[in-house]
Amino acid sequence: MTRATQVSQMTEARPRLPESLTRYGERVQAEFGSALPNGPPNGSMELAGPFRYHLGWADRQGNHLERPTEQGKGLRPSLCLFACQALEGNWVMATPAAVSLELIHNFSLVHDDIQDGDEERRHRPTVWRLWGEPKALLVGDAMHAIAYQAASRLARRGVPEAKALRCSRLLVESCLAMIKGQVQDLRHEDDLDAGLESYLEMIRLKTGALIQCALEIGALLATDDAGRVAAFARFGHHLGRVFQIRDDVLGIWGNEARTGKAGKGSGNDIRRRKKSLPIVLAFETAGGRRRGQLASIYRKESLNREDVDRVMELLDVLETRRRAQELIEAEAVLALKSLEAARLSAWARGEADSLVEFLVTREH
Amino acid sequence: MTRATQVSQMTEARPRLPESLTRYGERVQAEFGSALPNGPPNGSMELAGPFRYHLGWADRQGNHLERPTEQGKGLRPSLCLFACQALEGNWVMATPAAVSLELIHNFSLVHDDIQDGDEERRHRPTVWRLWGEPKALLVGDAMHAIAYQAASRLARRGVPEAKALRCSRLLVESCLAMIKGQVQDLRHEDDLDAGLESYLEMIRLKTGALIQCALEIGALLATDDAGRVAAFARFGHHLGRVFQIRDDVLGIWGNEARTGKAGKGSGNDIRRRKKSLPIVLAFETAGGRRRGQLASIYRKESLNREDVDRVMELLDVLETRRRAQELIEAEAVLALKSLEAARLSAWARGEADSLVEFLVTREH
Repeated sequence: MTRATQVSQMTEARPRLPESLTRYGERVQAEFGSALPNGPPNGSMELAGPFRYHLGWADRQGNHLERPTEQGKGLRPSLCLFACQALEGNWVMATPAAVSLELIHNFSLVHDDIQDGDEERRHRPTVWRLWGEPKALLVGDAMHAIAYQAASRLARRGVPEAKALRCSRLLVESCLAMIKGQVQDLRHEDDLDAGLESYLEMIRLKTGALIQCALEIGALLATDDAGRVAAFARFGHHLGRVFQIRDDVLGIWGNEARTGKAGKGSGNDIRRRKKSLPIVLAFETAGGRRRGQLASIYRKESLNREDVDRVMELLDVLETRRRAQELIEAEAVLALKSLEAARLSAWARGEADSLVEFLVTREH
Repeated sequence: MTRATQVSQMTEARPRLPESLTRYGERVQAEFGSALPNGPPNGSMELAGPFRYHLGWADRQGNHLERPTEQGKGLRPSLCLFACQALEGNWVMATPAAVSLELIHNFSLVHDDIQDGDEERRHRPTVWRLWGEPKALLVGDAMHAIAYQAASRLARRGVPEAKALRCSRLLVESCLAMIKGQVQDLRHEDDLDAGLESYLEMIRLKTGALIQCALEIGALLATDDAGRVAAFARFGHHLGRVFQIRDDVLGIWGNEARTGKAGKGSGNDIRRRKKSLPIVLAFETAGGRRRGQLASIYRKESLNREDVDRVMELLDVLETRRRAQELIEAEAVLALKSLEAARLSAWARGEADSLVEFLVTREH
């Protein structure tokens, strides 16, 4: 990289997207195409339309978009395929699992948007906003069901049946963990005393389990060496924390134009009274008077601009942003340390470094 | 059976519950127990509580019910285990698949109740009514995910891995068909011209696919004889129609106390403007003036008592109840005829006869 590009990127304050996050996209999309709900013309587009729209491949009329721009990062499938390739596996064989991970993630987003009444995602109206809640519920259910086609698709691709079944079990278990985490998150928001430990357990389930699963399955499809697979699983555990805590930071201080969510950033997660990490830290570290102020704001039914500003001020005073970023960086170190047991090539190690750096510093 | 019990049963106008619908219940429940979301105490009951409540094993406080009374019929798991036993298979080995079928059915009910805003199911408040929509959505999602543990559980029980994967594929495909059918159903309700053919396609997907899958998987786990498996699949196809059309009849003329749904029966499906079979038949057979009346009622945003009474009158005049029951009986004949290729024992054949008779005449 030339010094000039480095500087221009720094000006943008946007970290380089690691190769792994772009390398596998086309392959995943091709695999997706064959996994989509087709079948009889009657009714199939009714489901496939919103399905393709949510994934960023079609506009709301169902017209195919040649250059989809609002697709999400494809983090989970990329991690899966990267793990497979990093351990010298045949990563193309692993694409059904990668697709499954992306579908599990996306079904949860479609349902989440209904739950939270969110009107925008990735700079576009959400599925329920365009097609109504009943249809959006079913679109999410269909994504969820299709995700579990992975096992038979892996077997058809030549993965031994016992291994395909093991992948299937990991997918179901991590999806269940994600759902348990979402349930804890619902409770968490009403609990002013939920501390750091409870927060970390919640995100381990809600976010970490699927990211860990992505890396574990990718590794498993490349090797029978349990030690190397376990190294990727631990890598995923720490990466999940890096990802979610950075997400929480962006949810308060992020830039709306980049995150793609209406009102994301500028204290948006505060307005919604989300108990994200900076708030958890603030409650844990605030002294008597400040804690009282925070608590009285968080006990309100809804927060106005003044409340949000006051919370932002308190977060500043308590230096929660710095502390959150320190936590992220500590987890990043642990993530990379976990990978040592995987004995990676120089290419794979470099790619992992770049992935971690991206997740630590990303702005969207 | 003595003549006295026969007469007392006729007085109740309640057909005998076939042995298959009671025989397998305990086994299925034991299997369910081990499939439920447990894990760390933190958060597990939050999910398991509503989960057990919906399945009829717990009250709303999560207390175990020794004698669950409002559990649903367990039709799909019973059909699966019956098919396996009827073909001399080891039906206990098939229980993970039976549980999966019941979970797929029940996740769709939990989500359906949210969609339709239904406040009561099986004589009790619905999950969303007690725990709110966000939690109910997640409870349904968890049931759906757990359903796909079937494949690895079957393999652990000694089912060959290739066959376990085939069962898994059938489960996903029938669940997707069910969802497509639900999407068609949403559209169907706004379409006054949707005729019998479109109705039959919709219920083939919405209801038939999972019932067919239950019988097909049960048969598959007993035998490698493709002809006998196909016979059970066709049996299921027709049984699905019998079941759904009878459901539609009960939705208009059924007795609320028996069906367990608030307002079910007494024209309830009319009040909700559901395009169930009697209405489809009425639109197809009504002449000019009567069709005009029906259409003007069905174009309204909501129907009052007078509208419902007028539709009930028209259904009477057009003899739709008799015609619906004739359709049910014709499908019952086809169902039993399909089974001939399965070459069943006298016991199994008798049981199938009794199952079909129950579904043709059931009052709940």
